[in-house]
Amino acid sequence: MSASSHTHNHDPEEGLTFQPKFDASGLVTCVATDAASGDVLMVAHMNDEALRKTIASGEAWYYSRSRKALWRKGESSGHVQRVIEMRMDCDQDAVWIRVEQTGAACHTGRRSCFYRAVIGEGGEAKLTFIDADKVFDPAKVYR
Amino acid sequence: MSASSHTHNHDPEEGLTFQPKFDASGLVTCVATDAASGDVLMVAHMNDEALRKTIASGEAWYYSRSRKALWRKGESSGHVQRVIEMRMDCDQDAVWIRVEQTGAACHTGRRSCFYRAVIGEGGEAKLTFIDADKVFDPAKVYR
Repeated sequence: MSASSHTHNHDPEEGLTFQPKFDASGLVTCVATDAASGDVLMVAHMNDEALRKTIASGEAWYYSRSRKALWRKGESSGHVQRVIEMRMDCDQDAVWIRVEQTGAACHTGRRSCFYRAVIGEGGEAKLTFIDADKVFDPAKVYR
Repeated sequence: MSASSHTHNHDPEEGLTFQPKFDASGLVTCVATDAASGDVLMVAHMNDEALRKTIASGEAWYYSRSRKALWRKGESSGHVQRVIEMRMDCDQDAVWIRVEQTGAACHTGRRSCFYRAVIGEGGEAKLTFIDADKVFDPAKVYR
């Protein structure tokens, strides 16, 4: 491969051009993990503006599908996410951010949204609480 | 809360009833992380059947949106994912599995699909390779 073909490699998988592949709603999936523990904190979505604001500010911005609005993580709760590293996946439709989470990521008050494990029992699946202690009281934080 | 109301708590966020919230295409998002390193390996989707097969077999099954088909991870490559733990998020539209990954998760031959970091430079974003060594040669594995 010549230097010039490498420079101009726009292959989404092998190139170095940032070209997010937004879905029909204009979104990519974003996984936020705790930079210290490696735990998955939440899965949410970013539109083009949320991606750009996250990259520019170093703090996580998302797009809320239910509220149909751009959303700075922690704007109501103060529980911001400082981005330590952002990565893009092979086909550029998913983003992984490693963050320093202030307080808790989940609106229920837990550190992570993934506070229940799935247990299979005799063909049936059920949930069990795990790491489910509340870091804050949602009734006091969101009013 | 009485014992009986607790048993019958079907609140998706606070209950223990497994009730995945599938999107319009019948899918939930699944994040697979490496149980050993905590790295995010891939983001993919599961339909009801993929979820049930994953829970029943202890190996990851997905639904491929591009191929419109159920897909046992590793069925072509041998690079299966043994599920150590499965968790569900607050509103039950995303699943997190911690897995033991045989070989590599990414079809490009890398251990993880997230082999490029996003770097912001003067308002522009670009990618840079990170942990991008290939574990296998896709041309030899997929024929």
